[in-house]
Amino acid sequence: MSSGLVTSRRNRRTPYTDSVEKLGVSGYSIVNHTLLPKSFQRTVQEDYWHLKAHVQLWDVGCQRQVELRGPDAARLAQWMTPRDLREMRVGQCFYAPLIDEKAGLLNDPVVIKRAEDWFWFSIADSDILLWAKGLALGMSLNVEVSEPDVWPLAVQGPKAETLVARVFGDEIREARYFEFQERPFCDRTLVVARSGYSKQGGFEIYLDDGTRGDELWETLWDAGHDLEVSPGCPNLIERIEGGLLSYGNEMTRENNPLEINLDRFCHFGNEIEFIGQSALADIAALGPSQRMRGLLIEGDSCPPCGKPWPVVSHGMQIGQVTSAIWSPSLKHNVGLSLIDKNFWSSGMQAKVALPDGSMREAAVTSLPFTNA
Amino acid sequence: MSSGLVTSRRNRRTPYTDSVEKLGVSGYSIVNHTLLPKSFQRTVQEDYWHLKAHVQLWDVGCQRQVELRGPDAARLAQWMTPRDLREMRVGQCFYAPLIDEKAGLLNDPVVIKRAEDWFWFSIADSDILLWAKGLALGMSLNVEVSEPDVWPLAVQGPKAETLVARVFGDEIREARYFEFQERPFCDRTLVVARSGYSKQGGFEIYLDDGTRGDELWETLWDAGHDLEVSPGCPNLIERIEGGLLSYGNEMTRENNPLEINLDRFCHFGNEIEFIGQSALADIAALGPSQRMRGLLIEGDSCPPCGKPWPVVSHGMQIGQVTSAIWSPSLKHNVGLSLIDKNFWSSGMQAKVALPDGSMREAAVTSLPFTNA
Repeated sequence: MSSGLVTSRRNRRTPYTDSVEKLGVSGYSIVNHTLLPKSFQRTVQEDYWHLKAHVQLWDVGCQRQVELRGPDAARLAQWMTPRDLREMRVGQCFYAPLIDEKAGLLNDPVVIKRAEDWFWFSIADSDILLWAKGLALGMSLNVEVSEPDVWPLAVQGPKAETLVARVFGDEIREARYFEFQERPFCDRTLVVARSGYSKQGGFEIYLDDGTRGDELWETLWDAGHDLEVSPGCPNLIERIEGGLLSYGNEMTRENNPLEINLDRFCHFGNEIEFIGQSALADIAALGPSQRMRGLLIEGDSCPPCGKPWPVVSHGMQIGQVTSAIWSPSLKHNVGLSLIDKNFWSSGMQAKVALPDGSMREAAVTSLPFTNA
Repeated sequence: MSSGLVTSRRNRRTPYTDSVEKLGVSGYSIVNHTLLPKSFQRTVQEDYWHLKAHVQLWDVGCQRQVELRGPDAARLAQWMTPRDLREMRVGQCFYAPLIDEKAGLLNDPVVIKRAEDWFWFSIADSDILLWAKGLALGMSLNVEVSEPDVWPLAVQGPKAETLVARVFGDEIREARYFEFQERPFCDRTLVVARSGYSKQGGFEIYLDDGTRGDELWETLWDAGHDLEVSPGCPNLIERIEGGLLSYGNEMTRENNPLEINLDRFCHFGNEIEFIGQSALADIAALGPSQRMRGLLIEGDSCPPCGKPWPVVSHGMQIGQVTSAIWSPSLKHNVGLSLIDKNFWSSGMQAKVALPDGSMREAAVTSLPFTNA
């Protein structure tokens, strides 16, 4: 679904916006009040095949950092997430759901531990800066909460390691998944993490000087010509196939972490303290009433999913599709969906009600989709 | 500046989105993770002349409400704003800047007092829900903070009162500026306030049931045929001429309320307590170093202002333009700009550096622009 975007200063440009404009960006989304390029004059399918074969530069500057720094930074970081951060080492990145007092999801950032008293939350689309500032002020914590001048650039695809090693040195190859190194770039030292919003492998570079966007983009671009480097963006087909969730799409404040299969990122003992702890324990005791599942939807290419589509069985709604698209690999439409407890087993048959009123046959599957 | 908007469930539809789609909406912005229609297949100038002559329906469902309800609601509301709320009566709406501990602006909502222990903050583009929840939780306040199922619809223009009175009864004519009444609509009772983001007069209707959007829109639409009712949206020409500020454009966390002329909404005594009180007192003692001013910019129609334009005098930057557009009434480009102290007097001459590198002559003026 694409219509005109009327922009203003309120929709912030990133240090890479000039670069993507030169390369013919044709569509944006808005994340964290910031432009996120979403198309480059080729189809989502063309972009998908390129991402799976080569390497892409993604302007994900919208993944702004919420910085917690000071004596109470670790305490506040732990207070904000059910994930146990006690064993987290400097140099690690942790995917960490954030929940409110009712265990409703507020965001699902990657937490980056820069030092014992220094954390970055690399956020999805909600103003966690205000949440963290409100908590810190309300609790009179000794911590500085800010949004630093940091703008992630993602390098994704099977050739990403080759490209990043050319620019940041071969040592970066030693970084394990969800670990970062501090690597020199011109006169700066940048956080470079093996992470990113695809299953094709890659890195995220945390540029910490907004005036150097052109320089970083062009250095990577120039080093990648023979690797068929291209501008890109999170690819809807690839992320659904890979079961990667999107805050605001697959989850909102109405959802708890267990519903979207984040059980392994939740601690259920009393060794740590976090917001929503008792609400989450209550949900765990009963078990969640719905779960995020895959759906294979029959028929030809389905329309974009702009609002949730009902999933029905024997005339009763048993869930909703939150994102869906045609998969050229699986030759089916693939959907992410929240499915009620009695219907979430793999192989269950159901129907999906499309916006035009038509019904499509569908089958529940596990995530990620296989053979994609 | 218009390019494609790639939407998903994350960019929430409002109860009026179906209606504006039927009426040919051609461009959106995103505010509070929600679609805000911004164009309807006519120019901003055509829309401007219509707004000043007739009546428009605006889908401003994106102005979501942050509800504070319970014994500590009044205490939290006052804690969040430098505006003195002690004399606020039930039935009133107060424009109220929200600031952080450094007096940086976080939002500029209209606060609506529904009852002594019940407030709505009708917000601009930042997640004040998270700020209020964080504060309440951190301070262990006895207040429920939520985002209710409430979706404002604005009726703006000189014929707005006639249209609203036809639907909600003649008593609504007695509501004064920034007051609301609770008026019957079908089987509900809706808050209807004399307010809105234009200087042409009008009302905002706070629909509190998201399933009734079509009904409300169509009732107003059908009642307005002879009034030349039209879909519309906040008009950039009209709001700049009127000196209406936009959070994210004219102000960010980098700005304090005094810089943008909100002095009269700030209390400087010690009779109330609010976040940022000492920081704001310090700024007031010295006086702000810059102020929001109008600029009349020479030359033909200027491009859209997607990032701030430097304002210079004798080769030195003395400010920045934050929003600008051609005014057909004033036969000049009109701009909102932050101008340094020594240069902010009306009549001061300066130059504006446009994105293409050209320089335009400009003159500082007071706000709102006159003769518009």
